[in-house]
Amino acid sequence: MAGDGELKLLGMWTSAFVLRVRFVLNLKSLPYEFVEENLGDKSDLLLASNPVNKTVPVLLHAGRPVNESQVILQYIDEAWPDRPPAVLPSDPYERAVARFWAAYVDDKADAALETLEGALRECSGGKPFFGGDGVGLVDVVLGGYLGWFTAIKKLIGRRMIDPARTPALAAWEDLFRATDAARGVLPDDADKMLEFRQTALALGASKKITL
Amino acid sequence: MAGDGELKLLGMWTSAFVLRVRFVLNLKSLPYEFVEENLGDKSDLLLASNPVNKTVPVLLHAGRPVNESQVILQYIDEAWPDRPPAVLPSDPYERAVARFWAAYVDDKADAALETLEGALRECSGGKPFFGGDGVGLVDVVLGGYLGWFTAIKKLIGRRMIDPARTPALAAWEDLFRATDAARGVLPDDADKMLEFRQTALALGASKKITL
Repeated sequence: MAGDGELKLLGMWTSAFVLRVRFVLNLKSLPYEFVEENLGDKSDLLLASNPVNKTVPVLLHAGRPVNESQVILQYIDEAWPDRPPAVLPSDPYERAVARFWAAYVDDKADAALETLEGALRECSGGKPFFGGDGVGLVDVVLGGYLGWFTAIKKLIGRRMIDPARTPALAAWEDLFRATDAARGVLPDDADKMLEFRQTALALGASKKITL
Repeated sequence: MAGDGELKLLGMWTSAFVLRVRFVLNLKSLPYEFVEENLGDKSDLLLASNPVNKTVPVLLHAGRPVNESQVILQYIDEAWPDRPPAVLPSDPYERAVARFWAAYVDDKADAALETLEGALRECSGGKPFFGGDGVGLVDVVLGGYLGWFTAIKKLIGRRMIDPARTPALAAWEDLFRATDAARGVLPDDADKMLEFRQTALALGASKKITL
Protein backbone atom coordinates (compact mmCIF):
# COMPACT_ATOMS: atom_id res chain seq x y z
CA MET A 1 0.00 0.00 0.00
CA ALA A 2 1.27 3.49 -0.83
CA GLY A 3 3.15 5.13 1.99
CA ASP A 4 4.06 1.91 3.77
CA GLY A 5 7.06 -0.35 3.48
CA GLU A 6 10.79 0.04 3.25
CA LEU A 7 12.54 1.99 0.53
CA LYS A 8 15.66 0.84 -1.29
CA LEU A 9 17.33 2.85 -4.05
CA LEU A 10 19.61 1.14 -6.58
CA GLY A 11 21.95 3.79 -7.94
CA MET A 12 25.39 4.99 -8.86
CA TRP A 13 27.00 7.90 -7.08
CA THR A 14 27.82 9.72 -10.33
CA SER A 15 24.42 9.53 -11.98
CA ALA A 16 22.41 12.73 -12.55
CA PHE A 17 19.32 10.56 -12.79
CA VAL A 18 19.94 8.89 -9.43
CA LEU A 19 20.79 12.18 -7.76
CA ARG A 20 17.45 13.76 -8.50
CA VAL A 21 15.71 10.89 -6.75
CA ARG A 22 17.99 11.29 -3.71
CA PHE A 23 17.20 15.01 -3.67
CA VAL A 24 13.49 14.29 -3.35
CA LEU A 25 13.94 11.55 -0.75
CA ASN A 26 16.03 14.07 1.19
CA LEU A 27 13.41 16.78 0.80
CA LYS A 28 10.64 14.57 2.08
CA SER A 29 12.85 13.12 4.85
CA LEU A 30 12.06 9.61 3.68
CA PRO A 31 14.61 7.10 5.01
CA TYR A 32 15.99 4.69 2.42
CA GLU A 33 18.78 2.23 1.87
CA PHE A 34 21.15 3.24 -0.93
CA VAL A 35 22.66 0.36 -2.89
CA GLU A 36 25.62 1.31 -5.11
CA GLU A 37 25.53 -0.57 -8.39
CA ASN A 38 28.59 -1.42 -10.46
CA LEU A 39 28.24 -0.57 -14.15
CA GLY A 40 30.49 -3.47 -15.14
CA ASP A 41 28.76 -6.05 -12.96
CA LYS A 42 25.12 -5.19 -12.37
CA SER A 43 23.41 -6.94 -9.46
CA ASP A 44 20.82 -9.62 -9.96
CA LEU A 45 18.41 -7.36 -8.05
CA LEU A 46 18.90 -4.57 -10.62
CA LEU A 47 18.49 -6.93 -13.58
CA ALA A 48 15.36 -8.44 -12.05
CA SER A 49 13.91 -5.06 -11.07
CA ASN A 50 14.46 -3.29 -14.38
CA PRO A 51 14.68 -6.06 -16.99
CA VAL A 52 13.64 -3.70 -19.80
CA ASN A 53 16.29 -0.97 -19.50
CA LYS A 54 18.69 -2.48 -16.91
CA THR A 55 19.50 1.05 -15.74
CA VAL A 56 19.60 2.93 -12.46
CA PRO A 57 17.85 4.49 -10.64
CA VAL A 58 15.43 1.84 -9.46
CA LEU A 59 13.34 2.59 -6.38
CA LEU A 60 12.09 -0.48 -4.56
CA HIS A 61 9.09 0.28 -2.36
CA ALA A 62 8.12 -2.67 -0.19
CA GLY A 63 9.82 -4.79 -2.84
CA ARG A 64 8.00 -3.37 -5.86
CA PRO A 65 10.31 -1.70 -8.40
CA VAL A 66 9.69 1.73 -9.93
CA ASN A 67 11.98 2.61 -12.85
CA GLU A 68 13.03 5.74 -14.77
CA SER A 69 13.96 8.79 -12.73
CA GLN A 70 11.15 11.12 -13.83
CA VAL A 71 8.61 8.37 -13.19
CA ILE A 72 10.12 7.76 -9.75
CA LEU A 73 9.91 11.45 -8.82
CA GLN A 74 6.21 11.59 -9.60
CA TYR A 75 5.66 8.25 -7.86
CA ILE A 76 7.21 9.56 -4.63
CA ASP A 77 4.99 12.65 -4.82
CA GLU A 78 1.87 10.55 -5.32
CA ALA A 79 2.65 7.71 -2.90
CA TRP A 80 3.25 10.22 -0.05
CA PRO A 81 0.75 12.95 -0.95
CA ASP A 82 0.67 14.35 2.58
CA ARG A 83 4.44 14.54 2.96
CA PRO A 84 5.72 18.05 2.16
CA PRO A 85 7.15 19.55 0.11
CA ALA A 86 5.25 18.58 -3.02
CA VAL A 87 7.49 18.06 -6.03
CA LEU A 88 4.78 19.12 -8.46
CA PRO A 89 2.45 22.12 -7.95
CA SER A 90 -1.19 21.38 -7.23
CA ASP A 91 -2.61 23.43 -10.11
CA PRO A 92 -2.99 21.35 -13.32
CA TYR A 93 -1.66 24.09 -15.59
CA GLU A 94 1.37 24.69 -13.40
CA ARG A 95 1.96 20.92 -13.29
CA ALA A 96 1.95 20.85 -17.11
CA VAL A 97 4.48 23.70 -17.25
CA ALA A 98 6.75 21.89 -14.75
CA ARG A 99 6.52 18.62 -16.68
CA PHE A 100 7.32 20.42 -19.93
CA TRP A 101 10.52 21.91 -18.53
CA ALA A 102 11.52 18.72 -16.72
CA ALA A 103 11.33 16.86 -20.05
CA TYR A 104 13.17 19.70 -21.77
CA VAL A 105 16.06 19.48 -19.31
CA ASP A 106 16.63 15.81 -20.12
CA ASP A 107 16.37 16.37 -23.86
CA LYS A 108 18.55 19.43 -24.15
CA ALA A 109 20.04 20.61 -20.84
CA ASP A 110 23.65 20.95 -21.95
CA ALA A 111 22.82 22.91 -25.11
CA ALA A 112 20.15 25.20 -23.83
CA LEU A 113 21.12 26.97 -20.65
CA GLU A 114 19.95 30.29 -22.06
CA THR A 115 16.46 28.96 -22.70
CA LEU A 116 16.43 27.58 -19.16
CA GLU A 117 17.42 31.02 -17.89
CA GLY A 118 14.25 32.40 -19.49
CA ALA A 119 12.19 29.50 -18.15
CA LEU A 120 13.45 30.11 -14.64
CA ARG A 121 12.31 33.72 -14.76
CA GLU A 122 8.96 32.70 -16.25
CA CYS A 123 8.19 29.60 -14.12
CA SER A 124 9.12 31.06 -10.81
CA GLY A 125 7.64 34.52 -11.18
CA GLY A 126 10.79 36.12 -9.82
CA LYS A 127 11.26 33.56 -7.07
CA PRO A 128 14.59 31.73 -6.69
CA PHE A 129 13.59 28.20 -7.76
CA PHE A 130 11.72 26.80 -10.77
CA GLY A 131 9.31 25.52 -8.14
CA GLY A 132 8.85 29.04 -6.71
CA ASP A 133 10.00 29.57 -3.13
CA GLY A 134 11.04 25.93 -2.79
CA VAL A 135 12.55 23.13 -4.82
CA GLY A 136 10.22 21.39 -7.31
CA LEU A 137 10.29 18.90 -10.18
CA VAL A 138 12.36 21.02 -12.56
CA ASP A 139 14.85 21.97 -9.82
CA VAL A 140 15.63 18.38 -8.88
CA VAL A 141 15.81 17.25 -12.51
CA LEU A 142 18.27 20.00 -13.48
CA GLY A 143 20.02 19.79 -10.11
CA GLY A 144 20.97 16.20 -10.81
CA TYR A 145 23.41 17.45 -13.47
CA LEU A 146 25.30 19.73 -11.08
CA GLY A 147 27.72 16.98 -10.04
CA TRP A 148 28.80 16.60 -13.65
CA PHE A 149 28.91 20.37 -14.05
CA THR A 150 31.53 20.36 -11.27
CA ALA A 151 33.56 17.77 -13.19
CA ILE A 152 33.18 19.65 -16.48
CA LYS A 153 34.36 22.85 -14.78
CA LYS A 154 37.52 20.98 -13.85
CA LEU A 155 38.00 19.99 -17.49
CA ILE A 156 37.19 23.27 -19.24
CA GLY A 157 38.29 25.72 -16.57
CA ARG A 158 35.00 27.62 -16.24
CA ARG A 159 31.50 27.09 -14.87
CA MET A 160 29.01 25.37 -17.21
CA ILE A 161 26.41 27.84 -15.96
CA ASP A 162 28.13 31.11 -16.76
CA PRO A 163 27.02 33.94 -14.43
CA ALA A 164 27.67 36.49 -17.18
CA ARG A 165 25.41 34.77 -19.73
CA THR A 166 22.77 33.30 -17.43
CA PRO A 167 22.83 35.20 -14.13
CA ALA A 168 19.50 33.93 -12.78
CA LEU A 169 20.48 30.33 -13.49
CA ALA A 170 23.91 30.81 -11.89
CA ALA A 171 22.25 32.23 -8.75
CA TRP A 172 19.89 29.24 -8.83
CA GLU A 173 22.87 26.86 -8.96
CA ASP A 174 24.45 28.42 -5.88
CA LEU A 175 21.15 28.28 -3.99
CA PHE A 176 20.37 24.73 -5.05
CA ARG A 177 23.76 23.44 -3.95
CA ALA A 178 22.95 24.76 -0.46
CA THR A 179 19.47 23.22 -0.14
CA ASP A 180 18.36 20.38 2.08
CA ALA A 181 17.67 18.48 -1.12
CA ALA A 182 21.32 18.47 -2.19
CA ARG A 183 22.79 17.98 1.26
CA GLY A 184 25.09 14.97 1.43
CA VAL A 185 24.27 13.58 -1.99
CA LEU A 186 25.66 15.96 -4.63
CA PRO A 187 29.12 14.68 -5.59
CA ASP A 188 31.90 17.27 -5.55
CA ASP A 189 35.05 15.24 -6.28
CA ALA A 190 35.66 16.18 -9.93
CA ASP A 191 38.73 13.97 -10.33
CA LYS A 192 36.92 10.90 -9.06
CA MET A 193 33.98 11.57 -11.38
CA LEU A 194 36.19 11.99 -14.44
CA GLU A 195 38.00 8.78 -13.56
CA PHE A 196 34.63 7.01 -13.23
CA ARG A 197 33.62 8.30 -16.65
CA GLN A 198 36.77 6.94 -18.29
CA THR A 199 36.16 3.53 -16.76
CA ALA A 200 32.51 3.54 -17.78
CA LEU A 201 33.29 4.49 -21.39
CA ALA A 202 35.94 1.78 -21.51
CA LEU A 203 33.23 -0.66 -20.43
CA GLY A 204 31.21 0.39 -23.44
CA ALA A 205 28.64 2.54 -21.66
CA SER A 206 26.92 5.22 -23.70
CA LYS A 207 27.71 8.84 -22.90
CA LYS A 208 24.13 9.29 -21.74
CA ILE A 209 24.31 6.43 -19.24
CA THR A 210 27.54 7.60 -17.66
CA LEU A 211 26.14 11.08 -17.14
CA MET B 1 -9.68 27.99 -14.12
CA ALA B 2 -9.26 24.28 -14.80
CA GLY B 3 -12.22 22.75 -16.55
CA ASP B 4 -13.50 26.01 -18.01
CA GLY B 5 -12.82 27.74 -21.29
CA GLU B 6 -12.58 26.82 -24.92
CA LEU B 7 -10.15 24.26 -26.26
CA LYS B 8 -8.13 24.67 -29.42
CA LEU B 9 -5.66 22.03 -30.68
CA LEU B 10 -2.86 22.97 -33.06
CA GLY B 11 -1.88 19.83 -34.95
CA MET B 12 -1.08 18.00 -38.13
CA TRP B 13 -3.27 15.17 -39.38
CA THR B 14 -0.32 12.80 -39.79
CA SER B 15 1.29 13.25 -36.38
CA ALA B 16 1.34 10.35 -33.91
CA PHE B 17 1.84 12.90 -31.16
CA VAL B 18 -1.21 14.93 -32.15
CA LEU B 19 -3.36 11.83 -32.58
CA ARG B 20 -2.91 10.68 -29.01
CA VAL B 21 -4.25 14.01 -27.79
CA ARG B 22 -7.27 13.73 -30.10
CA PHE B 23 -7.89 10.21 -28.78
CA VAL B 24 -8.17 11.52 -25.25
CA LEU B 25 -10.32 14.51 -26.19
CA ASN B 26 -12.58 12.01 -27.97
CA LEU B 27 -12.65 9.69 -24.97
CA LYS B 28 -13.63 12.47 -22.61
CA SER B 29 -16.11 13.95 -25.10
CA LEU B 30 -14.43 17.34 -24.80
CA PRO B 31 -15.32 19.62 -27.73
CA TYR B 32 -12.37 21.40 -29.34
CA GLU B 33 -11.40 23.31 -32.44
CA PHE B 34 -8.74 21.54 -34.53
CA VAL B 35 -6.32 23.82 -36.35
CA GLU B 36 -4.23 22.13 -39.04
CA GLU B 37 -0.70 23.49 -39.10
CA ASN B 38 1.53 23.55 -42.17
CA LEU B 39 5.05 22.22 -41.53
CA GLY B 40 6.51 24.56 -44.15
CA ASP B 41 4.71 27.68 -42.90
CA LYS B 42 3.92 27.47 -39.20
CA SER B 43 1.28 29.85 -37.89
CA ASP B 44 2.13 32.82 -35.70
CA LEU B 45 -0.13 31.26 -33.07
CA LEU B 46 1.99 28.07 -33.04
CA LEU B 47 5.27 29.99 -32.86
CA ALA B 48 3.92 32.17 -30.04
CA SER B 49 2.40 29.22 -28.16
CA ASN B 50 5.42 26.93 -28.32
CA PRO B 51 8.41 29.23 -28.82
CA VAL B 52 10.82 26.66 -27.35
CA ASN B 53 10.16 23.65 -29.56
CA LYS B 54 7.87 25.14 -32.27
CA THR B 55 6.19 21.73 -32.60
CA VAL B 56 2.67 20.35 -32.57
CA PRO B 57 0.62 19.37 -30.67
CA VAL B 58 -0.20 22.49 -28.72
CA LEU B 59 -3.40 22.53 -26.68
CA LEU B 60 -4.76 25.99 -25.96
CA HIS B 61 -7.10 26.02 -22.98
CA ALA B 62 -8.82 29.37 -22.54
CA GLY B 63 -5.86 30.79 -24.44
CA ARG B 64 -3.10 29.24 -22.30
CA PRO B 65 -0.80 26.87 -24.22
CA VAL B 66 0.17 23.40 -23.05
CA ASN B 67 2.97 21.76 -25.06
CA GLU B 68 4.41 18.25 -25.57
CA SER B 69 1.95 15.43 -26.12
CA GLN B 70 2.63 13.42 -22.97
CA VAL B 71 2.37 16.58 -20.88
CA ILE B 72 -0.92 17.47 -22.60
CA LEU B 73 -2.41 14.03 -21.89
CA GLN B 74 -1.72 14.32 -18.19
CA TYR B 75 -2.94 17.93 -18.21
CA ILE B 76 -6.29 16.90 -19.67
CA ASP B 77 -6.62 14.19 -17.03
CA GLU B 78 -5.86 16.63 -14.22
CA ALA B 79 -7.82 19.64 -15.50
CA TRP B 80 -11.00 17.53 -15.85
CA PRO B 81 -10.58 15.09 -12.95
CA ASP B 82 -14.28 14.24 -12.80
CA ARG B 83 -14.61 13.54 -16.51
CA PRO B 84 -14.33 9.80 -17.22
CA PRO B 85 -12.52 7.82 -18.34
CA ALA B 86 -9.30 8.60 -16.48
CA VAL B 87 -6.20 8.33 -18.66
CA LEU B 88 -4.01 7.34 -15.72
CA PRO B 89 -5.00 4.83 -13.01
CA SER B 90 -5.68 6.21 -9.53
CA ASP B 91 -3.16 3.99 -7.71
CA PRO B 92 0.31 5.63 -7.50
CA TYR B 93 2.17 2.40 -8.33
CA GLU B 94 -0.04 1.69 -11.34
CA ARG B 95 0.44 5.29 -12.46
CA ALA B 96 4.22 4.80 -12.30
CA VAL B 97 3.99 1.62 -14.39
CA ALA B 98 1.84 3.40 -17.00
CA ARG B 99 4.23 6.37 -17.17
CA PHE B 100 7.18 4.00 -17.56
CA TRP B 101 5.64 2.27 -20.56
CA ALA B 102 4.35 5.51 -22.10
CA ALA B 103 7.91 6.87 -22.04
CA TYR B 104 9.23 3.56 -23.36
CA VAL B 105 6.89 3.69 -26.35
CA ASP B 106 8.25 7.08 -27.42
CA ASP B 107 11.85 6.03 -26.92
CA LYS B 108 11.72 2.66 -28.62
CA ALA B 109 8.30 1.77 -30.06
CA ASP B 110 9.40 0.73 -33.52
CA ALA B 111 12.22 -1.53 -32.29
CA ALA B 112 10.55 -3.18 -29.37
CA LEU B 113 7.17 -4.60 -30.20
CA GLU B 114 8.05 -7.88 -28.51
CA THR B 115 8.80 -6.13 -25.23
CA LEU B 116 5.50 -4.27 -25.55
CA GLU B 117 3.76 -7.60 -26.08
CA GLY B 118 5.07 -8.70 -22.69
CA ALA B 119 4.15 -5.37 -21.14
CA LEU B 120 0.59 -5.64 -22.43
CA ARG B 121 0.16 -9.01 -20.79
CA GLU B 122 1.71 -7.75 -17.56
CA CYS B 123 0.07 -4.30 -17.32
CA SER B 124 -3.41 -5.36 -18.17
CA GLY B 125 -3.60 -8.60 -16.20
CA GLY B 126 -5.11 -10.42 -19.15
CA LYS B 127 -7.44 -7.57 -20.10
CA PRO B 128 -7.49 -6.21 -23.66
CA PHE B 129 -5.90 -2.77 -23.14
CA PHE B 130 -2.76 -1.56 -21.38
CA GLY B 131 -5.22 0.44 -19.28
CA GLY B 132 -7.17 -2.74 -18.39
CA ASP B 133 -10.76 -2.89 -19.59
CA GLY B 134 -10.52 0.55 -21.15
CA VAL B 135 -8.07 2.78 -22.97
CA GLY B 136 -5.39 4.46 -20.83
CA LEU B 137 -2.18 6.47 -21.13
CA VAL B 138 -0.10 3.73 -22.77
CA ASP B 139 -2.91 2.84 -25.20
CA VAL B 140 -3.27 6.36 -26.54
CA VAL B 141 0.49 6.91 -26.72
CA LEU B 142 1.09 3.72 -28.71
CA GLY B 143 -2.19 4.14 -30.62
CA GLY B 144 -0.93 7.42 -32.05
CA TYR B 145 1.55 5.44 -34.15
CA LEU B 146 -1.11 3.28 -35.80
CA GLY B 147 -1.68 5.75 -38.62
CA TRP B 148 1.97 5.43 -39.61
CA PHE B 149 1.79 1.66 -39.14
CA THR B 150 -0.89 1.69 -41.86
CA ALA B 151 1.43 3.62 -44.14
CA ILE B 152 4.39 1.37 -43.36
CA LYS B 153 2.27 -1.69 -44.14
CA LYS B 154 1.68 -0.21 -47.58
CA LEU B 155 5.45 0.16 -48.04
CA ILE B 156 6.65 -3.18 -46.68
CA GLY B 157 3.66 -5.34 -47.53
CA ARG B 158 2.99 -6.66 -44.03
CA ARG B 159 1.64 -5.43 -40.69
CA MET B 160 4.17 -3.70 -38.40
CA ILE B 161 2.51 -5.55 -35.51
CA ASP B 162 2.84 -9.12 -36.70
CA PRO B 163 0.08 -11.38 -35.29
CA ALA B 164 2.43 -14.38 -35.45
CA ARG B 165 5.17 -12.74 -33.36
CA THR B 166 3.06 -10.56 -31.06
CA PRO B 167 -0.49 -11.94 -30.98
CA ALA B 168 -1.70 -10.00 -27.94
CA LEU B 169 -0.43 -6.73 -29.39
CA ALA B 170 -2.02 -7.47 -32.78
CA ALA B 171 -5.35 -8.14 -31.07
CA TRP B 172 -4.89 -4.90 -29.16
CA GLU B 173 -4.33 -3.02 -32.45
CA ASP B 174 -7.59 -4.33 -33.91
CA LEU B 175 -9.51 -3.42 -30.76
CA PHE B 176 -7.92 0.02 -30.46
CA ARG B 177 -8.76 0.92 -34.04
CA ALA B 178 -12.43 0.25 -33.21
CA THR B 179 -12.58 2.34 -29.99
CA ASP B 180 -14.38 5.61 -29.41
CA ALA B 181 -10.93 7.11 -28.87
CA ALA B 182 -9.80 6.40 -32.42
CA ARG B 183 -13.10 7.18 -34.09
CA GLY B 184 -12.77 9.79 -36.81
CA VAL B 185 -9.18 10.78 -36.06
CA LEU B 186 -6.91 7.85 -36.97
CA PRO B 187 -5.68 8.44 -40.55
CA ASP B 188 -6.07 5.51 -42.93
CA ASP B 189 -4.96 6.91 -46.28
CA ALA B 190 -1.49 5.37 -46.60
CA ASP B 191 -0.68 7.01 -49.94
CA LYS B 192 -1.49 10.46 -48.66
CA MET B 193 0.62 9.89 -45.54
CA LEU B 194 3.62 8.70 -47.52
CA GLU B 195 3.29 11.70 -49.83
CA PHE B 196 3.17 13.98 -46.75
CA ARG B 197 6.32 12.37 -45.42
CA GLN B 198 8.21 12.97 -48.66
CA THR B 199 7.22 16.63 -48.63
CA ALA B 200 8.14 17.00 -44.96
CA LEU B 201 11.56 15.43 -45.43
CA ALA B 202 12.17 17.66 -48.45
CA LEU B 203 11.42 20.63 -46.18
CA GLY B 204 14.19 19.43 -43.88
CA ALA B 205 12.02 17.99 -41.11
CA SER B 206 13.58 15.32 -38.93
CA LYS B 207 12.27 11.78 -39.22
CA LYS B 208 10.96 12.06 -35.66
CA ILE B 209 8.92 15.18 -36.38
CA THR B 210 7.25 13.77 -39.45
CA LEU B 211 6.22 10.65 -37.59
